[in-house]
Amino acid sequence: MQAPELVERMLRGDRRAVARTISLVENAAPQLREIMAGLAPHTGRARIVGLTGSPGVGKSTSTNALVKALRARDESVAVLAVDPSSPFSGGALLGDRVRMQEHATDGGVFIRSMASRGHLGGLSWATPHALRVLDAAGFGVILVETVGVGQAEVDIARHADTTVVLCAPGMGDSVQAAKAGVLEIADIFVVNKADREGARVTARELRQMVGQVEHGPGEWKPPIVSTVAAKGEGIDELLGRLDEHHAHLTATGEADRRRFARAREEIEAIVMSTLRARLGDVHGHAALDKLADAVATGHGDPYSAADTLLAALDT
Amino acid sequence: MQAPELVERMLRGDRRAVARTISLVENAAPQLREIMAGLAPHTGRARIVGLTGSPGVGKSTSTNALVKALRARDESVAVLAVDPSSPFSGGALLGDRVRMQEHATDGGVFIRSMASRGHLGGLSWATPHALRVLDAAGFGVILVETVGVGQAEVDIARHADTTVVLCAPGMGDSVQAAKAGVLEIADIFVVNKADREGARVTARELRQMVGQVEHGPGEWKPPIVSTVAAKGEGIDELLGRLDEHHAHLTATGEADRRRFARAREEIEAIVMSTLRARLGDVHGHAALDKLADAVATGHGDPYSAADTLLAALDT
Repeated sequence: MQAPELVERMLRGDRRAVARTISLVENAAPQLREIMAGLAPHTGRARIVGLTGSPGVGKSTSTNALVKALRARDESVAVLAVDPSSPFSGGALLGDRVRMQEHATDGGVFIRSMASRGHLGGLSWATPHALRVLDAAGFGVILVETVGVGQAEVDIARHADTTVVLCAPGMGDSVQAAKAGVLEIADIFVVNKADREGARVTARELRQMVGQVEHGPGEWKPPIVSTVAAKGEGIDELLGRLDEHHAHLTATGEADRRRFARAREEIEAIVMSTLRARLGDVHGHAALDKLADAVATGHGDPYSAADTLLAALDT
Repeated sequence: MQAPELVERMLRGDRRAVARTISLVENAAPQLREIMAGLAPHTGRARIVGLTGSPGVGKSTSTNALVKALRARDESVAVLAVDPSSPFSGGALLGDRVRMQEHATDGGVFIRSMASRGHLGGLSWATPHALRVLDAAGFGVILVETVGVGQAEVDIARHADTTVVLCAPGMGDSVQAAKAGVLEIADIFVVNKADREGARVTARELRQMVGQVEHGPGEWKPPIVSTVAAKGEGIDELLGRLDEHHAHLTATGEADRRRFARAREEIEAIVMSTLRARLGDVHGHAALDKLADAVATGHGDPYSAADTLLAALDT
């Protein structure tokens, strides 16, 4: 399928065209350039909600419960599961297929995993590109689920309008999570598996954490929602909080600011990828390999090596 | 202190000079260029051991126990705690000071936290630089401790000779961790808190996981070590496994290959940082902001915007 046809089908909401385009994103296909130009006027409408938390807190279950609740309101939903830790294998894909079956007959749901194979920023535009595709395809809500704490969490906050950080009782991570910087990125905290021992303690710790940060009048203060996602408990409250945060973003102009910041990063990432590719074109692999060998054996330093590569780019 | 003096002091093992240089790394100081050139001939001797795992598995405790055990063998040890998830606050520094006290009078131990503030690869050279400094300063073993699963784990494997992945029983993460790609990066698995319920199950699950991967003759098969780091139990066995892996790396030439790959990435990261800085010099912020605004409002696509920026770089 050629790019114009793909774009046209996507704008009609054809899910196969959407899936195909996200594969193009994963493979960094050259057609993306034309596709993105075609999609641009149709973007900027979807609500992007990020879900993150340590392995085992119940991210997939919570995402599924949210999908059901959103479908009950007749909103179209796309789920993008990003696995930034798996440059090696498409490990998330099995879970994908299992989850797909549940909604296989529902045209209002689209579920897709995406492995981000790059590092050093090499594929840092992949997630924003995929979100751009799903947005233009007309999904009202996009749930972005990510694996793991750490950089992945900070990244999701950069891509999402609303970031939901999930915790679970007894995982010893609520307080440590604060250290790991999630306090700065969470718009909503969820204590999932709230029927387990220690759930109240976890919720209290989170409340104290949030309480330690000063929130001015009119500023958003992250609420703490208790859920048992596997039973659907607390999901309506979570949805209510998501709506409140969305209204807050819109009212304060923060939604536009976040959209602007995302566009800025997306452009920068493309610029850097392009420069990286040019560098490869100029040098091939041999020059870098030779320099790396010198640095590895103590016969050179990385800055001088970088200078050599850059000098060739300038000529 | 000028760069030549810093280098000279560092090579004598002056710990204040080492601390100062790592601060220069954190701040991306221009002197690094000269310092790295001075250190280059003295690098390539340290054993770099990465420790990673979810929050709460006992990474700090395990690191401390390893430090003690290594000191008992009279090896000099540096600990670098990298917190890739905290671009916002120096949250790890408090823990740092607490830990420092334990070894304050021991000249053979150096402990330092480092926040990595960059994203999009902006400071991706920070960890390799810090390792380069500690290596040149003559530390025999460098323990790199990182926070969180996800990209941080994959990253540490790129920097370390040996990567230790810690798990703890009952955290529901051993199997999910496999999904998250740790199987590919772990050289040694540790089940810490092995006196807790479920420790055997966790160890067995890990063994099964490892068993599912085919290991050819002469290939390293990640062992699973049970520890109670808080009591020092199992640490000697862990140390033994670390020695075995080190011997394996040396015998197979893999140590050199890993050193080469690291140098390669370090050079690339410096090249990309330099190009990013040049882009900023050419445009200031205004041009990118204007383009980002157009993209955010659907009046342009990110590729055309990137083209505009790159065109100015070429002239």
